Amino acid sequence: MAATSLTEGDSYRLEIRPLGRGLPRPSLSSHAVPVDPKRTVAELKELRELTGDENGAQRVAWTETWERARGWLRDKVADTDAEEEIDAAGNQWFTLRGESERAVLIGGHIDSVPNGGWLDGALNVVAGVEVLRRVAADGTPPVTFRLVNWADEEGARFGRSLFGSSAAAGSMADQDELRQLNDGDGVALPAALSASGVDLDHALDARSQLDSAAAYLELHIEQGPVLESLELPLGVVLGTFGVERHRITWRGQAAHAGSTPMAERRDALAGAAKLALELRKIAATVGDGAVCTSGGVVCRPGIVTSVVETAEQLLDQRHLDATKLASLLELAREASARFAEEEKLEVEWEKIWSIEPILFDETLLGFCEEAILEVSDTAHRLPSGPLHDAAEVSRAGVPTVMLFVQSLRGLSHTKLEDTKEEHLELAVAALDSLASKTIAWVAGGGSRGRS
Amino acid sequence: MAATSLTEGDSYRLEIRPLGRGLPRPSLSSHAVPVDPKRTVAELKELRELTGDENGAQRVAWTETWERARGWLRDKVADTDAEEEIDAAGNQWFTLRGESERAVLIGGHIDSVPNGGWLDGALNVVAGVEVLRRVAADGTPPVTFRLVNWADEEGARFGRSLFGSSAAAGSMADQDELRQLNDGDGVALPAALSASGVDLDHALDARSQLDSAAAYLELHIEQGPVLESLELPLGVVLGTFGVERHRITWRGQAAHAGSTPMAERRDALAGAAKLALELRKIAATVGDGAVCTSGGVVCRPGIVTSVVETAEQLLDQRHLDATKLASLLELAREASARFAEEEKLEVEWEKIWSIEPILFDETLLGFCEEAILEVSDTAHRLPSGPLHDAAEVSRAGVPTVMLFVQSLRGLSHTKLEDTKEEHLELAVAALDSLASKTIAWVAGGGSRGRS
Repeated sequence: MAATSLTEGDSYRLEIRPLGRGLPRPSLSSHAVPVDPKRTVAELKELRELTGDENGAQRVAWTETWERARGWLRDKVADTDAEEEIDAAGNQWFTLRGESERAVLIGGHIDSVPNGGWLDGALNVVAGVEVLRRVAADGTPPVTFRLVNWADEEGARFGRSLFGSSAAAGSMADQDELRQLNDGDGVALPAALSASGVDLDHALDARSQLDSAAAYLELHIEQGPVLESLELPLGVVLGTFGVERHRITWRGQAAHAGSTPMAERRDALAGAAKLALELRKIAATVGDGAVCTSGGVVCRPGIVTSVVETAEQLLDQRHLDATKLASLLELAREASARFAEEEKLEVEWEKIWSIEPILFDETLLGFCEEAILEVSDTAHRLPSGPLHDAAEVSRAGVPTVMLFVQSLRGLSHTKLEDTKEEHLELAVAALDSLASKTIAWVAGGGSRGRS
Repeated sequence: MAATSLTEGDSYRLEIRPLGRGLPRPSLSSHAVPVDPKRTVAELKELRELTGDENGAQRVAWTETWERARGWLRDKVADTDAEEEIDAAGNQWFTLRGESERAVLIGGHIDSVPNGGWLDGALNVVAGVEVLRRVAADGTPPVTFRLVNWADEEGARFGRSLFGSSAAAGSMADQDELRQLNDGDGVALPAALSASGVDLDHALDARSQLDSAAAYLELHIEQGPVLESLELPLGVVLGTFGVERHRITWRGQAAHAGSTPMAERRDALAGAAKLALELRKIAATVGDGAVCTSGGVVCRPGIVTSVVETAEQLLDQRHLDATKLASLLELAREASARFAEEEKLEVEWEKIWSIEPILFDETLLGFCEEAILEVSDTAHRLPSGPLHDAAEVSRAGVPTVMLFVQSLRGLSHTKLEDTKEEHLELAVAALDSLASKTIAWVAGGGSRGRS
């Protein structure tokens, strides 16, 4: 949507978006050195060149390519006075000391999935460098300003995402399980961490990093189609969905495909098929953005000549409202019991993982909305379906907000992941403005700090 | 069903089962040495002991255990005058030369799937030895009598079933493909065959084995629940189902389970789920014993956090009537196109394999019915859902029939496969009688021979 001049219709829009809309836009050059959003785009391309190949980004955490990306980031920050620190969980911090120790944080992750995109995670780190440069150029800030490059957000190599941020948040409760994890080549997680100077036994020492945190900001590509479908470049993220993730096992009876009459079958695939289709009704019943996904069914014996004896079905349900998330789960459980009876199957549920919905800070949501309206006409509010490091920081009690920039075709975790360059530039400008507002707020004693 | 005396109702039953029913049963001791069905059961147990373990039968073709089973069979036949020959496809023949070269064949297969049952294939070979002994004891038979132990009926190691019988039938048209096959350890099929003295390039030389064949008889466990549900020990097999076997690939769009609204998804699993459920309606619509099976769905990327992009679905449809088999396939194709449109998916069909229905010889069906009625009250006629070596021999133009004995719980290809011992004994007696009738028929010039 292009910028439009004030019209009659705007009075209504002003009512629901009270901050900033219709006001004169502040000049982006009100600082000593304004941010240069085009430089961010150029640097993202430079990083892609350095750490990608014909299949996409290859910055998998705890690998040589990831270390190269961290070194590249170090070089980018070198011109400022920011101090670097790698914490006990492998998170890379750049700190501009301010007049107060209370700190405003911008975070992202330079690690990617294998064959990943150029923006997921890296966008915020590289945009953060641009904001860091601007803050540094403005002289000693009233509060401390920190850029953090979280370690292993993706969990691509060992299957455990949000490694560094969960350590810093103190929510990493599965260290015994982590010790057992191996990558595809049989390398144990503790050994891989050790090669990057991280001792799993002391990873939780990273908790002290958030002691002084007064606010946390994260820019990310949406990784979904909502902003594109609304033709909006940017969005305010309300929070991250709560997630219920389960494995549902249907058990019937293997039987010869040729000799077993239809009426005598106990076909485990029938249970999984019915539930896969029912999930759409369940999501519609609960509504308000509910999503339910069956990402896969594994059939055993899985051969063309046998009725399916066992079907293991993956289920992922998400909602921003904890009560509605519970309804999604309850409806799916009820449906599975009904289908098991209809199909003469046994059905068993096993929880894989769950997390409660996390709602971001109301004040920061307002700042984010203001910042977006300085560069765009509409500040749509939307939840984040995917999890982000911001969820961990928010769970740790730090006032948090995220800013989304439009994804093309909703694609991520693929080299096809992309965002229009003009939208990336708007995102850098909005993040910078959000950072300014947040610094001023924290300096003025507005943040309750870590609660 | 217990034996009953003649009642009014029998007159109708006599109409549909004109041969043998109600007549005095011939004495099983009308031969010099009658068959000893209990010995067959004992020898099957001996074979199980020799070639099985706690997980079931391990007589996979082209393995050391299979060779051991063939050696055991050789020893069992040694007391007769039958001559052994291993043909160019690895089939093991035992021939009792008769007054005529025209031959009555009994066939089975001593190979099993891994962790298989004690009866599938082996029953007929071991029962065939018992019939062979009886025929030999009767003196030089009027026609030649042969027992054949087909090589690699199961195709368990290389995925190609009916190896030996298709070579003998001349229908093995895929030798170039066979050359490419490897087992799970990377051993190529030609190398495995070579270790058993078989040269794939010359396997089709086995065709000459059927030149003199005038009739082929095969006893097998039903591997299905029909006879058990009717409480009948034995059944006459009408023929083998025609089979259409296809791989259906549904293509949608991978999308993040958290960030993609339900309405914007193109979920490949939805297509597969709808078709899996629709197959039951299609089978019911076509009827007459139609069976349709989706034995598995492979989802990609197959992870909990993504909508399914690609679902590869296996389809197996079977019918004894070629026109109805074609209807099954047509209805499934139509349904898949409809579901693809509803779900905004692409759908692609790839034929894996098909075979036309094969109807057994009318005269031999009558003999089989007579033989069953000599030991039981009812001779139910049923099709065979699974394929058997008999189908290959029948395709080659040899008058063929099969005799089924009840399977418990319809189970096979598992160590749980079982049949009541009294039913096994009835089966041996019926097979022997069927062999006698067939020898007399061929001797009298009744068989048209290989057509």
